Amino acid sequence: MPSNVHQATCSAPVNIAVIKYWGKKDTTLILPTNDSLSVTLDQDHLRSVTTARADASFSNGDRLWLNGEEETIKDGGRLHRCINEMKKLRQAKESEDASLAKLSEWPVHVCSENNFPTAAGLASSASGFAALIASLAALYELQPQVSSSQLSRIARQGSGSACRSLFGGYVAWQGGNSPTGQDSLAVQVAPQSHWPELQALICVVSDAKKGTPSTAGMQQTVATSPLLQHRINEVVPNRMKSISDAIQNKDFDTFADITMADSNNFHACCLDTSPPIFYMNDVSRAIVQLVEELNKASEQEGNGKLAAYTYDAGPNAVLYAPKQNIAKILATIRHYFPNADFDDTFGLLGKGANASHRGPQEALGLPSDLPASFNKNVILVHEAGAIRRLIHTQVGDGPRLLERGAGKESLLGENGEPLRLQRAKRA
Amino acid sequence: MPSNVHQATCSAPVNIAVIKYWGKKDTTLILPTNDSLSVTLDQDHLRSVTTARADASFSNGDRLWLNGEEETIKDGGRLHRCINEMKKLRQAKESEDASLAKLSEWPVHVCSENNFPTAAGLASSASGFAALIASLAALYELQPQVSSSQLSRIARQGSGSACRSLFGGYVAWQGGNSPTGQDSLAVQVAPQSHWPELQALICVVSDAKKGTPSTAGMQQTVATSPLLQHRINEVVPNRMKSISDAIQNKDFDTFADITMADSNNFHACCLDTSPPIFYMNDVSRAIVQLVEELNKASEQEGNGKLAAYTYDAGPNAVLYAPKQNIAKILATIRHYFPNADFDDTFGLLGKGANASHRGPQEALGLPSDLPASFNKNVILVHEAGAIRRLIHTQVGDGPRLLERGAGKESLLGENGEPLRLQRAKRA
Repeated sequence: MPSNVHQATCSAPVNIAVIKYWGKKDTTLILPTNDSLSVTLDQDHLRSVTTARADASFSNGDRLWLNGEEETIKDGGRLHRCINEMKKLRQAKESEDASLAKLSEWPVHVCSENNFPTAAGLASSASGFAALIASLAALYELQPQVSSSQLSRIARQGSGSACRSLFGGYVAWQGGNSPTGQDSLAVQVAPQSHWPELQALICVVSDAKKGTPSTAGMQQTVATSPLLQHRINEVVPNRMKSISDAIQNKDFDTFADITMADSNNFHACCLDTSPPIFYMNDVSRAIVQLVEELNKASEQEGNGKLAAYTYDAGPNAVLYAPKQNIAKILATIRHYFPNADFDDTFGLLGKGANASHRGPQEALGLPSDLPASFNKNVILVHEAGAIRRLIHTQVGDGPRLLERGAGKESLLGENGEPLRLQRAKRA
Repeated sequence: MPSNVHQATCSAPVNIAVIKYWGKKDTTLILPTNDSLSVTLDQDHLRSVTTARADASFSNGDRLWLNGEEETIKDGGRLHRCINEMKKLRQAKESEDASLAKLSEWPVHVCSENNFPTAAGLASSASGFAALIASLAALYELQPQVSSSQLSRIARQGSGSACRSLFGGYVAWQGGNSPTGQDSLAVQVAPQSHWPELQALICVVSDAKKGTPSTAGMQQTVATSPLLQHRINEVVPNRMKSISDAIQNKDFDTFADITMADSNNFHACCLDTSPPIFYMNDVSRAIVQLVEELNKASEQEGNGKLAAYTYDAGPNAVLYAPKQNIAKILATIRHYFPNADFDDTFGLLGKGANASHRGPQEALGLPSDLPASFNKNVILVHEAGAIRRLIHTQVGDGPRLLERGAGKESLLGENGEPLRLQRAKRA
């Protein structure tokens, strides 16, 4: 592969909101009805990786592959807008420095892959668009003149919550007031290093019993829920301030209170939609009840809360907890929800990090160090597989530049098409 | 039995709210945070029956038996308040007419029974307190000088929603503004005869998978839900007006829209509580999705909505529908939820009224007259017994005086104790 190839490969993280984004006031620019705030998760465990290459010889314009499937870049569509905005930033740079290659005039090929399967039940659009923007920013050498917040404004137009994946740590998406979206962007509330002890346990919940999935979404809530306006005007502004303070103070109890209340408030607005939108199922609710009981019992001993739950637009729970509580929470979850596959990324079960524990497992007893007043009958032991998979991760950093040029990290082959397609053809 | 016994036996109906009552501003007087509105159901199918007797010779003070179990009448408790308020009304009457027996000074024995088992999943406190008040009002010969609205004010202090069971048809509980509760009472919005075609199908949902039941209730929502205030101040007042108009106009589409939206709004406030309160389960939600799909498909054919769902503080659905839609809805429910016991009170299945259809039944096909665009896959066919029981009933009348004196309707024996206890002793 020629060494003068114009290419960059970046990875970007998943983020899980603790103050939820639900509702757009502009569906084209993706301007949200309220601010939101998220925790960036560790790319060592969950990430999107994207290679972007600019080449004057590409003859079919801009092209993009996602997990090996080519996506159409529709005129005026989200991909088109993002790539064009990035080209404009490059163009501005080129117009200031005539010695630069005119990359902005060349077509780009983009290849993006997620390291987590759809089966993980995690939305990949946030990490995906963040990796797209990060790799184009690296390709075009836009930083540090262009800030990550400026980049987040572009990622936002791909997928709203993608803007928050442009930063590590604790990240706010300021909804902004401008009709052009100039001030609708992400800012870092605190870096990962400020409060690195926060970990996450993702509970991937089986949703096998569902019929036809609902097609209703956030704009249906905006149009029909009388409660959403109150959420937007009163509830979220207060919580943004309080949870930012809790993060500054590493005050897990307050962080947990607000996180759980806001998840419930968001799902309440979904339920208040006509027709109602249901994301949580009976298993989701059982996890809520279990966490509430764990917290109540811990508080009765004069200790703090053990964990906080939050649910996005699906049945999966994400549990946030300080590192020292995770083993206890994990064991409790595995008792009530047998047979979940477990990605033991931190070696909690004592068999080395990154072990996977799959398939049938013995009925597990409850951990011996639960608070004394914990009510064992708060929920029943569920049928095997009610939680399909457990993923243990932690707060993480922002997008990473993996490679400049076309080396071993490249997802694109010499011909500018995905390597995995070429490998598949050879096999 | 002596014929000069001072006794009355009354029955009172169940009511199911379409604008929900949730939250008290005074927990002793039971003053609600918002108005509510209900449909009274037919006593031919679901009722509480109460015999009240006053006798100077009763030597252990006031006593009350509910379904054969004696209840303690605690000083200052709800039963005590209700009986005392009724005695005061009698006393006022006696003070105006010296020829009247001084019943207000005599102890009362009260025996109350519900004709529906706990298994029906219906709250019995509304019909029970309404029957208590109605039977004491008949015993004391208070009506018509004391109006049903005045009686409802007393029933309200027993169980809030009981005040609405003092009327038949369509009934509003006006929350009122007075701190004494003088203006917190029920009024009839329209009699049963105004819109007699409205029928109900009660779907008793299995809740076998629940762990420890939640003890949190409406006052937890008042204390912690930021959305409830908006419901109280904005949502309910608008809906009370609109649904009253819809009832006046026999406009089922609007009635259904508001009924479903208010059920969802109420459960949204429960979910917005800390810790969250969940009443609906996966089966409840599947019924919602089925009804929403039936309505959408019917509207796509240019017809009106077929049914409206509403959920009280539990997983059971009550479906309201015009009489002509019930057979279609019933057959659809029985297709997706096999093996429900069915109380065929109207002889819909062609085997005579009041037949019961129990135990395993063949998998039932969908009815042939569903709207063409109905999506059969909106939900899956559930496991047998997911809905345990179906009860078909209709809008009904208010409390009935079954008997004055001690005849064949009496629940009390000659000795002033429940007949069913005497029968049980003899057996």
